[in-house]
Amino acid sequence: MGGVSRSAAVTGATPRSPLVQFFSARLARVQERMEEMGVRSALVSHGGELPWLTGYTAMPLERVTLLVLRLGEDPQLLVPAVEAPRVVAHDELFSLRPWRDSEDPLDIAADLVGRRARGVVALSDRAWAGTLLGLQSRLPGMRFVCVSEVTSPIRAVKDSHEIGVLRDAAHAADRVAAAVQSGEVPLAGRTESEVAGDIGARLIAEGHDHVNFTIVGSGPNGASPHHDSGDRTIGERETVVCDFGGKVGVRGASFGYCSDITRTVVTGSPSAEITECYEVLKGAQAAAVQAARVGVPAEDVDAVARSMIDAAGYGKYFIHRTGHGIGIDEHEEPYIVAGNTTPLAPGNAFSIEPGIYVPGRFGMRIEDIVVATDEGPVPLNVADHSLAVVG
Amino acid sequence: MGGVSRSAAVTGATPRSPLVQFFSARLARVQERMEEMGVRSALVSHGGELPWLTGYTAMPLERVTLLVLRLGEDPQLLVPAVEAPRVVAHDELFSLRPWRDSEDPLDIAADLVGRRARGVVALSDRAWAGTLLGLQSRLPGMRFVCVSEVTSPIRAVKDSHEIGVLRDAAHAADRVAAAVQSGEVPLAGRTESEVAGDIGARLIAEGHDHVNFTIVGSGPNGASPHHDSGDRTIGERETVVCDFGGKVGVRGASFGYCSDITRTVVTGSPSAEITECYEVLKGAQAAAVQAARVGVPAEDVDAVARSMIDAAGYGKYFIHRTGHGIGIDEHEEPYIVAGNTTPLAPGNAFSIEPGIYVPGRFGMRIEDIVVATDEGPVPLNVADHSLAVVG
Repeated sequence: MGGVSRSAAVTGATPRSPLVQFFSARLARVQERMEEMGVRSALVSHGGELPWLTGYTAMPLERVTLLVLRLGEDPQLLVPAVEAPRVVAHDELFSLRPWRDSEDPLDIAADLVGRRARGVVALSDRAWAGTLLGLQSRLPGMRFVCVSEVTSPIRAVKDSHEIGVLRDAAHAADRVAAAVQSGEVPLAGRTESEVAGDIGARLIAEGHDHVNFTIVGSGPNGASPHHDSGDRTIGERETVVCDFGGKVGVRGASFGYCSDITRTVVTGSPSAEITECYEVLKGAQAAAVQAARVGVPAEDVDAVARSMIDAAGYGKYFIHRTGHGIGIDEHEEPYIVAGNTTPLAPGNAFSIEPGIYVPGRFGMRIEDIVVATDEGPVPLNVADHSLAVVG
Repeated sequence: MGGVSRSAAVTGATPRSPLVQFFSARLARVQERMEEMGVRSALVSHGGELPWLTGYTAMPLERVTLLVLRLGEDPQLLVPAVEAPRVVAHDELFSLRPWRDSEDPLDIAADLVGRRARGVVALSDRAWAGTLLGLQSRLPGMRFVCVSEVTSPIRAVKDSHEIGVLRDAAHAADRVAAAVQSGEVPLAGRTESEVAGDIGARLIAEGHDHVNFTIVGSGPNGASPHHDSGDRTIGERETVVCDFGGKVGVRGASFGYCSDITRTVVTGSPSAEITECYEVLKGAQAAAVQAARVGVPAEDVDAVARSMIDAAGYGKYFIHRTGHGIGIDEHEEPYIVAGNTTPLAPGNAFSIEPGIYVPGRFGMRIEDIVVATDEGPVPLNVADHSLAVVG
């Protein structure tokens, strides 16, 4: 179990599948960019980069998985011996180096990088801090940077397959949103948790492989953007913020792409204040979607939504950025936030989700996933944007 | 939203609840140990330490949550503004510093620690590597260590409340195991995924708040210790490794404690080889449980199981450590593994889970959670250890 097994792609034989060729091309692009940036080695662990590069997802546990990429060398995957049998389907892309519980995987990684090497090494942003500290002590001549510096500009540009899976995910989430908006999922008189449970079950029934989160924030709880759905019973004439998402495409691929949608509904005839506030939000959200054109700095899209909500006097209640990129990770580049001057590129996929949160009283948010294209912004979510009045 | 709100405990008023007093005592113990170890500041983020210290769990997202502990200063929780409303129930333990998406939380943390400070700062082992790199660049005079160096010796000793929740979790998992062993959960003729789905639903029905994992490894798949339950249909006269767990006690507390149990069953009359192999495993597991006494080095417990499996000729098929600690995290200290010379302490809770994995043919594992006490090892799981023959 301790040795290195060499596989077809590494030894030069023909790769077996188009999928392997696909991932090989991605690995090659990342290695090219490493060379351009002067990054000698990259160590890829937790987070979306590993499945994006290889199709294999590291388990979120303390036993370290590291894909070791070095310029001019074949990739190696250091994987816990207990997990090595899970990797079989993907091992044409790299040689496999299973490590046993009696070995130290960081020692092995340091030997591969070169204990006396000097230069820059990239590590997954979401690797654990303990892993980084262990690597730094073993590689005193290396300067560590986040692997996203290498991968993000490539990874944030989705290809047509990725956009297809994101669209499938968005449409599945749309169908669940429509069920909430039509009253098919009853709200008033039930607890937030019960509604969240229904939404989760429907996400699965509509084709998600798993549920990432289900936020149901009723009445004053709607003013907590990341509210934990709880035991509060939803009342009459209350706004209810429903924000939910999951992953589609996991089966077969072992990783998938995320959905993420928010719709706000109201249980019975809304007050004039709610109606007015919602119209402001709806206008701001639609304007930000339209502003999300190729070449526009991400922060300008944020500014469009923010300035409209500001102008209507609700600015102090819009307490978060306008959006985040989405893909294998729920949140990834590009972030639609003040300070991000990077222009949107064709293939960028991100949420547009302004909100208005009045503490102690109510909240509302509208969120779509949008793709920037040369033909303009393309929303993947199509569920109705008006304020649905439900029972 | 940008200011610091001071709360009752911080300003010296009487804490409102026994729970707050409880967490305050834990915070005080950790701060004492920081002082003993010469750790000036601790920054607590992802992982079990934050809920263990405060009852609050950081969301597993890119917006950083950091509890800033400094010697001689009141604790502060840096939390994303969007998540600040979730923290209300816990904020008597610390002052709250919500940060907005237009602010940089690492700048705020560095200012609190002191940009020119020199010394040692501890960071959560499971904080993201990107967070550590950002902090290191802002605090060039500080040496970073894992917060587990401070907290683990305290956290690995469970108090009577924690053991009570772990016992509840274990017994709930036992009831699901018993349903598998009795044939109430049908196996042969169904896919691993279907069985895994049933087990997950039963974990919830038996009182878990959520499911962490459900491994169903049938026939040759049983030889993959962390097998992804898949589309394989379970056959006749096959061993099926069922390893599953979840969290109990999340509701109300916002965090919980984990269950983790493995039982291996066989669909129809086992072969002589399976029967013999299982007896070896069962004997080794029971002996390791009995060896898990206070004062015994963790690695000696591993050696007990390993030597018995070795002696029977199956040593090369036992490819992992004997166990891991368990608590708020699925895997935590103490690890029952060669190289861990730390003696077991009263209140340590950990798994004892040797396995035998014959590649391409079959696997088996038996796992209980055990607590070391002055009266000897106390297994929390009581589900039958014999090889159940099911339909």
